[in-house]
Amino acid sequence: MKSVDLNCDMGESFGAYRIGQDEDILPYITSANIACGFHAGDPGIMSRTVQLALKHDVAVGAHPGLQDLAGFGRREIKLSPREAYELTVYQVGALWGFVRAEGGMLRHVKPHGALYNMAAASAGLAEAIAEAVYRIEPELILFGLAGSELIRAGNRAGLRTASEVFADRTYQSDGALTPRSRPDALVTDEQQALHQVLSMVQEGKVRSTDGRDVAITAETICLHGDGHHAVAFASAIRSSLESAGIAVQRIRRG
Amino acid sequence: MKSVDLNCDMGESFGAYRIGQDEDILPYITSANIACGFHAGDPGIMSRTVQLALKHDVAVGAHPGLQDLAGFGRREIKLSPREAYELTVYQVGALWGFVRAEGGMLRHVKPHGALYNMAAASAGLAEAIAEAVYRIEPELILFGLAGSELIRAGNRAGLRTASEVFADRTYQSDGALTPRSRPDALVTDEQQALHQVLSMVQEGKVRSTDGRDVAITAETICLHGDGHHAVAFASAIRSSLESAGIAVQRIRRG
Amino acid sequence: MKSVDLNCDMGESFGAYRIGQDEDILPYITSANIACGFHAGDPGIMSRTVQLALKHDVAVGAHPGLQDLAGFGRREIKLSPREAYELTVYQVGALWGFVRAEGGMLRHVKPHGALYNMAAASAGLAEAIAEAVYRIEPELILFGLAGSELIRAGNRAGLRTASEVFADRTYQSDGALTPRSRPDALVTDEQQALHQVLSMVQEGKVRSTDGRDVAITAETICLHGDGHHAVAFASAIRSSLESAGIAVQRIRRG
Amino acid sequence: MKSVDLNCDMGESFGAYRIGQDEDILPYITSANIACGFHAGDPGIMSRTVQLALKHDVAVGAHPGLQDLAGFGRREIKLSPREAYELTVYQVGALWGFVRAEGGMLRHVKPHGALYNMAAASAGLAEAIAEAVYRIEPELILFGLAGSELIRAGNRAGLRTASEVFADRTYQSDGALTPRSRPDALVTDEQQALHQVLSMVQEGKVRSTDGRDVAITAETICLHGDGHHAVAFASAIRSSLESAGIAVQRIRRG
Repeated sequence: MKSVDLNCDMGESFGAYRIGQDEDILPYITSANIACGFHAGDPGIMSRTVQLALKHDVAVGAHPGLQDLAGFGRREIKLSPREAYELTVYQVGALWGFVRAEGGMLRHVKPHGALYNMAAASAGLAEAIAEAVYRIEPELILFGLAGSELIRAGNRAGLRTASEVFADRTYQSDGALTPRSRPDALVTDEQQALHQVLSMVQEGKVRSTDGRDVAITAETICLHGDGHHAVAFASAIRSSLESAGIAVQRIRRG
Repeated sequence: MKSVDLNCDMGESFGAYRIGQDEDILPYITSANIACGFHAGDPGIMSRTVQLALKHDVAVGAHPGLQDLAGFGRREIKLSPREAYELTVYQVGALWGFVRAEGGMLRHVKPHGALYNMAAASAGLAEAIAEAVYRIEPELILFGLAGSELIRAGNRAGLRTASEVFADRTYQSDGALTPRSRPDALVTDEQQALHQVLSMVQEGKVRSTDGRDVAITAETICLHGDGHHAVAFASAIRSSLESAGIAVQRIRRG
Repeated sequence: MKSVDLNCDMGESFGAYRIGQDEDILPYITSANIACGFHAGDPGIMSRTVQLALKHDVAVGAHPGLQDLAGFGRREIKLSPREAYELTVYQVGALWGFVRAEGGMLRHVKPHGALYNMAAASAGLAEAIAEAVYRIEPELILFGLAGSELIRAGNRAGLRTASEVFADRTYQSDGALTPRSRPDALVTDEQQALHQVLSMVQEGKVRSTDGRDVAITAETICLHGDGHHAVAFASAIRSSLESAGIAVQRIRRG
Repeated sequence: MKSVDLNCDMGESFGAYRIGQDEDILPYITSANIACGFHAGDPGIMSRTVQLALKHDVAVGAHPGLQDLAGFGRREIKLSPREAYELTVYQVGALWGFVRAEGGMLRHVKPHGALYNMAAASAGLAEAIAEAVYRIEPELILFGLAGSELIRAGNRAGLRTASEVFADRTYQSDGALTPRSRPDALVTDEQQALHQVLSMVQEGKVRSTDGRDVAITAETICLHGDGHHAVAFASAIRSSLESAGIAVQRIRRG
C-alpha cells in the first residue's frame, strides 16, 4: 500500500501577532514543522504549538529559518556553510527543549523559506544543515525539496530523508519548481492540484509545464496553513488521498 | 575534604563584538555558564565556547537571560512566570543542541543578570525556571544565589542545586548581597576577597557589613571573566583554595 | 464651541504580520499615533502608514515604545531616564524621516504601552521624554494621560500638551485609571462609554467607580484600532460628539 | 588648492559591546559616518557619538546598514529597492533626531558594508537610496564608492555626491576595487598606501594591480577606526596630505 505524509508549517505567530490556523489544520496533517524563533515563532508560541501537535498525535519537526523576522525568513542572506550549521543547531536545539519538556519526541527537521531554497541549490549549505541535524540526533528525518541538494546531502550524511512535493506549484521538465516570478508558477485549480498530488504519489511522476512526464519522489506533501482556503484544501487533499487507497501517515524510519 | 566549584560566565561575545577572556579563564575554573543568545552570545559564539569548555574539561552549563541584548540582560523586564519558563526552555534547549553536537553533556543551568536577581527574590519566577530545567532534564544542576528563592524552588522541584557565593561582593546581616547602589557593595581588596571566600567555603559563614558572622552555603564561587584583573584573580583564588586543602572541582550530583 | 481630538494607535503591523484596521479607522479620527519599529511597526509599515494618514488629512504623530517586539511594548523594562530620552529621540527621528519624505509634518508624540504608563507615574522618565521631544522640535505636541507626570513634565518643558482620556476605561476617585487587574476596569457598555466621553469633554468631569464626580481634562480621546467592534465604535463616538455640538478636530497649538 | 575629506565609520559599539576608537580618531578626520542601530550602534551610542563628533567640529553623517547586527551588516540580504528606500529613510531619520537634539546639522549619508557594496553595483538599489536621501533633505551629500552606481544615482537625483576612495585597497584596471577574496586586495605597506592616496587626490589616478594608471575621482578617503594601527595611520595620512599642500576639509556643497 502506498503511503504519504502531509506536512504543514506551524507556530509562525509572534508575540501579539497571529498567522496561520494551526488548530484547524492539525486534524488533517501528519507532520508539523514548527518555527523556532528566527523567522517566526517565539518561546511562548513554540511551547503551545508543540503541545498542540502532540495532542493531535502529529509528528513534531523543527522548522529553522534565517534570522530575519522582518522578512519572515524569505529574503536570501548570504551565509557561510558554517553559519548555516550553527543556526540549524541552535534552532533545532531550542525546539527540542520544548518537545522534551512536553515528554514528546522530535522527529524531523525542515528548513524554512530562503534557507530551504538555498539548501536546495547549494551543496555546501545542504551539507552543513545535514551535518547539524545528524550531530544533534542521527535518528532525525531531514525534509527537503524532492531532487534537491539537501536530500542528497542528507542521504550522504546517513540521515533518513523525506522528499517533499507541492500540490500548488508547477514543475519544470528538469524536475525543478517553476520560479514564482513566472506566471505559470502556481496550480490555482483545486482539481488539478489534487490530480498532480495523486500522480506524484501513485505513479512517481509529475506533468511539467511544457507537457512532459517527469519522475519525482513524493514522500511528503507541503500544505499551507494560511489563507482562507487552507483548511478546506487540507481536508480535500486528505480525502482525495485516502479515497485513492493511499495511507496518509507520518514518515517512518528505515 | 572540603570542595568547591569555580564558575564563570562565558560566551558573551556577539557577532563582531568581543567581551571576556574565555580562553585565559578556562584553565582556572570548573564550570562554564554559556550565554544562549538572548542577553549575549550567538550561535557561532555558542558553538565555539562549548568546544572550548569541553576541551578544557570544564562542566558546561546554560546561562539563559532576558531577551535584551541592548541591555546585556541586566535591565529588569516584568515577566510572568510562564514567560520565564518559556525563555528558559528555549535557551537551555538551544545550548543543549551545541553540547550534543559536540558529543558533550549539559551539566547545569544558571540564570543571568536581571533574571538571576528576579529569580532570587520571586518564588513564582523561581518555580517557573526550576520547572523548565526539570522538565528538560531532571539531572541538570540549578545554580542560584545562596539562600535565594531559586535555590529553594530548585530543591522543591527535585533538582540538585548549587548555592553560589561571590568573592567580590559584601553581604548583609540577613545573608543578602549588599545592593550595588551602596558604597560598601564591593570587596575591592584582593586579600579580603580571598579571605571571604575561604571563610565561606571552610566555615560556612561570611562577615556581614555590620560585623556579624552570617551562615552561608558556598558550593560554587562566581568569577568574573571581564576586566584586566580577571585572569590574575581567577588564578589567585584557585591557588588560595588549593593551598587551604580545598578541592576545586565541578558540582557532583547526589 | 467645545472641541476634542480623536486619536488612534496605527502602523502596528510588522513584516508579514498584520494588526489593526488602519484604513477603516482613519476616516473617523483626527490624530494617528504611528508605531516606530521598537514595539511594533517596521520601515515599510511606517512608510505606508504615514502616506495613509496624510491622505486622510489626519495629524501624524510618533508613537515610540519600549524595544520589546515580543511583548508588544507592554512589559515594563526598568529604564534610566537617559535611556528613555534616547529611545524617544531615535524613534521620533525615524518617523520624522518618513513624514518628511512624504512632504508632511510631524505633529505630536505619544508614548506607547508600558512606556506611556511608566511616564505617567515617574517624573524622571516623564522629564526625559519631554526633553527628547522638545530638543527635536519645540512645536511638537506631547500626548499623555490626563493628570499624569508626563503632562506636567511636558508643560514644564515648554511643550504644548494634550491630555488624553479613555472611553472604555473606568476612573478612580483620584482621577487615575482603574488598574486592568480589577474587575471594574473596563467600560463594556457602549452607551455608557459614549456618555462618559461626553461628560469628560463637555463638563470636564468623570464619574469614578465609587460614584464621585472627578475633574478631568479631555483634550484627546484614545480609540482602539483592533477588535471587530473598533470601527463601529469609532464611528459611534464621532457621531455622538458631533451631535452634541462638539468639534472633532486635531489639537491646535496655542 | 586641492582638497579632500577624511571620513571614518563611527558609533559602531552596541550596548555593553565596544568597537572602534572614536575619540582618538576624531581629531584627524573631517567627516564621521555614524551607525544608526541596524548593523551597529544603539540610541545611547548614537547620542554620544553625535555629541563627540560635533565637539570635534567634524561633519556628521548617517551610516545606514542592513538590519543584521549579528553579521555587522556585512552579509548580503536580498532586498527590493523599496526595502532599501525604507531602511534608509528610517535610519537617516533616527540619526537626524540625535543631530537635531544636539543643535547640529546632518551633512551626509554613506551606506554601510553590504548595503554600500550592493548600492555600488545595482542601479535599482542605488536609485532607491538616493531617492530616500533626497526626499528627506536635498541638501544632504551622498557618499559612495568612486565610479559606482550609487554616485551616478545620487547625481541623477540632484544630490551633491562625494566619491570615496580607499588608502588600503588595491584597484583593478576598470577602476573597481580588487575583491577581498584575492590575495592582492589589500595595500599592506603604509608608504604605498600614502603614495596611492596622494596620487588619487593630486593626479586623479591610481595604479591598478596590473600596472596601469586608472582615472579616479577622490573626494573623500575612507579611514578605518578599528585595529591597533588605526590612529597612527589616520595621523600619518593627514600629515602626508597637509605636507603635500592638500587641504583636508569636509565636503562643501556646490
